[in-house]
Amino acid sequence: MPHQYETDGAAIYAQSFATIRAEADLSRFTAEEEQIAVRMIHALGLVELAASIRLSPGFVSAARTALEQGAAILCDTRMVSEGVTRARLPAANPVICTLQDERVPGIAATLGTTRSAAALELWKSSLQGALVAIGNAPTALFHLLNLLEDPACPRPAAIIGCPVGFVGAAESKAALWADRPTPCCIVEGRLGGSAVTVAAINAVASRAE
Amino acid sequence: MPHQYETDGAAIYAQSFATIRAEADLSRFTAEEEQIAVRMIHALGLVELAASIRLSPGFVSAARTALEQGAAILCDTRMVSEGVTRARLPAANPVICTLQDERVPGIAATLGTTRSAAALELWKSSLQGALVAIGNAPTALFHLLNLLEDPACPRPAAIIGCPVGFVGAAESKAALWADRPTPCCIVEGRLGGSAVTVAAINAVASRAE
Repeated sequence: MPHQYETDGAAIYAQSFATIRAEADLSRFTAEEEQIAVRMIHALGLVELAASIRLSPGFVSAARTALEQGAAILCDTRMVSEGVTRARLPAANPVICTLQDERVPGIAATLGTTRSAAALELWKSSLQGALVAIGNAPTALFHLLNLLEDPACPRPAAIIGCPVGFVGAAESKAALWADRPTPCCIVEGRLGGSAVTVAAINAVASRAE
Repeated sequence: MPHQYETDGAAIYAQSFATIRAEADLSRFTAEEEQIAVRMIHALGLVELAASIRLSPGFVSAARTALEQGAAILCDTRMVSEGVTRARLPAANPVICTLQDERVPGIAATLGTTRSAAALELWKSSLQGALVAIGNAPTALFHLLNLLEDPACPRPAAIIGCPVGFVGAAESKAALWADRPTPCCIVEGRLGGSAVTVAAINAVASRAE
């Protein structure tokens, strides 16, 4: 017997978001923040994520305005850049990931760091006013924060900092939250990853659910 | 002051995997299964995932042998196909995602299903002996199970079934585990996603940590 299941994509989204709103504690978010949090929870399948999401004041409007004005989206991995729903972008925004650039291994060797961090050296011409999205590598987020300690470094409009894992993830996100070089969105602790990061991008890109 | 952090990729992996082995209950896995579970936990940053991972007897050897013999890896989304570490593949295996194929919207309309499910209709010529990896869409996994109810349908070597979310994810993975048309790997319940799925692929592709 064939399995029976919901095949209407819009119905699946609506039912998913209704479940999240019924189960997750979203009371501390503003209305526009709540839409971001719901999508991030949806991507992870974990309502408990709500307690770990932090959106700094002005993050949603800064990120949304930047995208509406054509800002580039700078991503640390191709799992993030490939996940961005192009149809939700308000200005056919460029989505950039430099990790596979052939210059990256040489830069990493010269700087004595990871390829994920070294890839950010190729962001500089696109960084001013951009939406930065780091969903995998704590070293990339730390490297970004160190770059931004130089007042002459081009400044993004907003940062989504959601690296995942057991070494440096919690620490790098705490450092972003403490430094706050721009409005930002983080997931505290070990949780995070490309799916949550993509969800945050897709949520600020469009109010549509 | 610049932030100080570990910049050696190999050291980061080693420390991450040591933390997982110290904290997660991995006792019910065989030695080769344990390597798969550790990578899946690493991708999610959640040691509690261990309790939800299910590997059917023979899954690791079936998936590994298939890849060594050149099997294609069929993925439901580009977030999965882009995440596969090509350098870990034993036979320069093709990594295929048909979701963006221009024929998919028409097939979805004809069949009355999601694009994620419709995309599998384009897998048929590659399906025999393949490693299937479904990391996002419950509808894709249900559609696959229904296709495999036909004894004439080409048969993959193994299935990684880890769709994530609130509608159909738990149900589709329970159906895979019950039907068991091939050896398989699932994450029970709502958790799952592209990162966990990629981790399982990368782990069966190579024993290297």
